[in-house]
Amino acid sequence: MLDALFEELTVLLDDRFSNSEAVLQDHSKDESHHTPTPPDAVVFPTSTEEVAKILQICSKYKIPIIPFGVGTSVEGGVIPIYGGVCVDMSRMNRILQINVEDFDVTVEAGLTRKRLNQELRDTGLFFPIDPGADATIGGMASTRASGTNAVRYGTMRENILNLKVVLADGQIIKTGGRARKSSAGYDLARLFVGSEGTLGIITEVTLRLYGVPAAISAAVCSFPTISDAVNCCILAIQSDIQVARVELLDSKQMEACNRYSKLNYKALPTLFFEFHGSSETVRLQAEEVGKISREFGAGEFKWAEKTEERNKLWQARHDALYAALSLKPGAVAWSSDICVPISRLADCIEETCVDLRETSLVTTIVGHVGDGNFHVIFLLDPENEKEFEEAKRLNVRMINRAIDMDGTCTGEHGIGIGKREYLEKELGEGIQVMRQLKNALDPHNVMNPGKVLTV
Amino acid sequence: MLDALFEELTVLLDDRFSNSEAVLQDHSKDESHHTPTPPDAVVFPTSTEEVAKILQICSKYKIPIIPFGVGTSVEGGVIPIYGGVCVDMSRMNRILQINVEDFDVTVEAGLTRKRLNQELRDTGLFFPIDPGADATIGGMASTRASGTNAVRYGTMRENILNLKVVLADGQIIKTGGRARKSSAGYDLARLFVGSEGTLGIITEVTLRLYGVPAAISAAVCSFPTISDAVNCCILAIQSDIQVARVELLDSKQMEACNRYSKLNYKALPTLFFEFHGSSETVRLQAEEVGKISREFGAGEFKWAEKTEERNKLWQARHDALYAALSLKPGAVAWSSDICVPISRLADCIEETCVDLRETSLVTTIVGHVGDGNFHVIFLLDPENEKEFEEAKRLNVRMINRAIDMDGTCTGEHGIGIGKREYLEKELGEGIQVMRQLKNALDPHNVMNPGKVLTV
Repeated sequence: MLDALFEELTVLLDDRFSNSEAVLQDHSKDESHHTPTPPDAVVFPTSTEEVAKILQICSKYKIPIIPFGVGTSVEGGVIPIYGGVCVDMSRMNRILQINVEDFDVTVEAGLTRKRLNQELRDTGLFFPIDPGADATIGGMASTRASGTNAVRYGTMRENILNLKVVLADGQIIKTGGRARKSSAGYDLARLFVGSEGTLGIITEVTLRLYGVPAAISAAVCSFPTISDAVNCCILAIQSDIQVARVELLDSKQMEACNRYSKLNYKALPTLFFEFHGSSETVRLQAEEVGKISREFGAGEFKWAEKTEERNKLWQARHDALYAALSLKPGAVAWSSDICVPISRLADCIEETCVDLRETSLVTTIVGHVGDGNFHVIFLLDPENEKEFEEAKRLNVRMINRAIDMDGTCTGEHGIGIGKREYLEKELGEGIQVMRQLKNALDPHNVMNPGKVLTV
Repeated sequence: MLDALFEELTVLLDDRFSNSEAVLQDHSKDESHHTPTPPDAVVFPTSTEEVAKILQICSKYKIPIIPFGVGTSVEGGVIPIYGGVCVDMSRMNRILQINVEDFDVTVEAGLTRKRLNQELRDTGLFFPIDPGADATIGGMASTRASGTNAVRYGTMRENILNLKVVLADGQIIKTGGRARKSSAGYDLARLFVGSEGTLGIITEVTLRLYGVPAAISAAVCSFPTISDAVNCCILAIQSDIQVARVELLDSKQMEACNRYSKLNYKALPTLFFEFHGSSETVRLQAEEVGKISREFGAGEFKWAEKTEERNKLWQARHDALYAALSLKPGAVAWSSDICVPISRLADCIEETCVDLRETSLVTTIVGHVGDGNFHVIFLLDPENEKEFEEAKRLNVRMINRAIDMDGTCTGEHGIGIGKREYLEKELGEGIQVMRQLKNALDPHNVMNPGKVLTV
């Protein structure tokens, strides 16, 4: 059966079909601790119409279809656990239309977020959503990604105006237009955002853009304890100060970032802040946050005024996972990802720290604390099963804690294969609705099977 | 069959079941031009569990179920076109939990927006979404409503954290928790927001709240022509000035508002502005907008500084529909509701004005122009079919114009029964996905049948 399928795909795609061992290996894994599994073949479409033809062919054979961006997921979202055809979207990376007057842009799903912002450089506009990795826009949409700017600009959920999607049977749909708001029927865009490729393949995305602020200033500030840092952040948020970014790094993570990104900060619990606005509002915001931080025993604000300094600072933050990995050569990283209402964040982090003090694992904490979202990064010896068991035990405790606090088992990483059982715990009967939706749009379960929902 | 159903519902609800003629008439209509049709019975549940039992009973008889708030929809969303049982949610109007520290509140679906803000008065927080009518939160969620504040605070889409929903078969689900962001599977909250009661009944809603701004100022400004007013708004938005509200009223609407709300402004095309922030930022925003408005020949900014003045101004804006009705005693109002990308708004309004100049109908224009959304209100003699035909002709031209400009046939009123055919035109094949979703969650088509999708 595979031979016939491969034959059809080769006729369609010629050398943009591959089942060479090296290409299969490249598409067997993401950046997580989950076990790689190769697909049976990889295809590299260059247009929505080609994606549609690929899905028509694959659907006929009822073979799994796994959409793939650049493989930076961290819960196994792109791992072909049942084999099948991996659809690598990286060659669909064009910007289709920049509407400067409307603050929006339409791109192909395989474009990465950094390339997008490079291309926007001369427009005075930017796209704020920034997961750590230089992910594709399609991948970010599929996992409902966010990052450091979400506290001010929202997540992929709030920043998508329209999608073009190819359904399992090859049908091409759009979810709406470019209007800023619409009450036109069910919210199809939001249905596909966060569906992790299980309902269709996103091929084009229309995104909201924002004006580059007139003034930007960033500051780094260390605290005596992690609780002080967290409580400073909470009070700033509850005081309704419009921070653009507020990121927590624990002392171990600061140690790693200093080394990996050649920085020179104290290895203490630290907040990275950024303020956007007019020079006047930025100054006022920074002053107010400065006052609050001193209430919690903070050290000096170290300002990163110049663009290059700021870029270096945020690149260091985005590289936190890679920096953490450098703490333990040969380790793999397992990044947890819970999110709770801000009033519970201090409790949640403190209780988590008690767990971490008692474990022998090497761990760091980083967090988008303005959203109530943080990650414990576990650094694990890939040969040592006991370390994985211990990480799992601690991760489960964190997830239960978050759910008990009316939070979620994943703030931004998605469910993938790593969190399916916790999704059930979090939602209860709601999971049946998800199954009904999946079954309605993908009755043969060919779209990224086994992700989000167990088969 | 109805007798047996009524018997079961009476056993459950006693005098909170009614099929008296007066009650049926009260639930036969909304505020639109659409023809009333009475339901067969009306029930008044007081808890989610009761709603669940009602739906279990009705589903057994496969009879239509029509959720009803306070009947302020304007596209026939609550009209029982196939009869059935109307579920009046107005007695489920409690505030269940205010989380001041998290800026959120959980309410029952039958609470109205004004009552909510009255109850929040002492918390320093408010809920910004404000359709013209004092609608219920459940009704606003169901139509993905917005209003004058959407340009700054978003719509119901962006401001719902969690829902409790009863499905057609009586199953109760929640869509998530209270975390600010989540990547936990399909976005069930957004699926029900805007589904107009066709997928289930929303019984509880957790909303985002906002801090009451330190400073608020409102201003009214008239322009020589409607195009000048629109272009002033467009330039303010494109200059990235953070207006909280910017509303357009044409000269006829100003004439109506002056009379109905006892105001004393010039009967000229007018923008109502509001600015939120610190006293400093509010002053700066107003100055910048003032500069832009003068470029378009605007008159003086008339400031409404005091709370009472501002409230009077915005109540007048919210009463625009009722004011328009007073222009033609005995008339019914038909409010169109298109939304386009802001760069196309001037063209869209100008082309619409050409149509309106050539019609004999009495019309006004009001618009949430910062979002690219505006309404033509047609005032029609209920006995004169020709007027309805003419309104329909003009409405279709507006809708086609909006769709051709990459906009939508409804910015905030919903599809109801009035816009089903245009939804198809707007979405194309996407409508089949909506049908699949509907069929998956409501296979017997008992939930508000004939709304959004034709049966």
